[in-house]
Amino acid sequence: MFADPAALSHEQLEEGTAFAPHFDAHGLITAVAQESGSGRVLMVAHMNAEALRRTIDTGEVHYYSRSRKALWKKGETSGEIQKLIALSMDCDQDVVLLTVEQTGRGAACHTGRKSCFYRVLKDGKLQNTGEPRLFDPDEVYAK
Amino acid sequence: MFADPAALSHEQLEEGTAFAPHFDAHGLITAVAQESGSGRVLMVAHMNAEALRRTIDTGEVHYYSRSRKALWKKGETSGEIQKLIALSMDCDQDVVLLTVEQTGRGAACHTGRKSCFYRVLKDGKLQNTGEPRLFDPDEVYAK
Repeated sequence: MFADPAALSHEQLEEGTAFAPHFDAHGLITAVAQESGSGRVLMVAHMNAEALRRTIDTGEVHYYSRSRKALWKKGETSGEIQKLIALSMDCDQDVVLLTVEQTGRGAACHTGRKSCFYRVLKDGKLQNTGEPRLFDPDEVYAK
Repeated sequence: MFADPAALSHEQLEEGTAFAPHFDAHGLITAVAQESGSGRVLMVAHMNAEALRRTIDTGEVHYYSRSRKALWKKGETSGEIQKLIALSMDCDQDVVLLTVEQTGRGAACHTGRKSCFYRVLKDGKLQNTGEPRLFDPDEVYAK
């Protein structure tokens, strides 16, 4: 499914049609999820080859959890599945941009908020933007 | 300027006001630049502490170039300076979201396009979206 970026010329990698995701030394690639429609950046996580493959095959976003060292289907616990609308690659193919529909309650963040970016820097401190929690994480992630 | 994320509780890190960017083992943090207004994701790069500090101090975005192993003021060669409008942190403070005004010709990508994400996956191949080049990279980066 994936071409080998090391086998491509610089020109082929940046201007060609070969899908050659550049996984890093840990076998991971950075993925940015952006909400279709609103344009909100929801979250940034990592994918290994298997997560990327499953995302494309199923149309539902999978990541790789570095803390759990495991494939992670987004929403498998919370129900907040991300439906893939489009997948874009950057110039040197080391970042994946996912255009997604955030299903469920619309919360990509494990804190229950739509986006993980709910704090903005102001005078050296992080200020909460007041983004509402769409679910209660203590309930959703309770054992 | 930065708090130590390791000195914070999980709650403080995720819900608090302390600005505690979590730099990785290489001293880097992932930064996503999103254009103010259009909401376009322009590029994804890395910052070290110095790049992050200078970005905040000057209001002009600095990254760290892993290939050149050097601080990199965005636009220093091309003139495509990124003016910082807002800086957001994600829940666990290991990603920076930069809301920027892309000055110059409006091209964040070294290929001369506005965004680095000018190709979308379609039937296993990357399809160019037809995003125009706003400058000729051979001219801009010529020695």
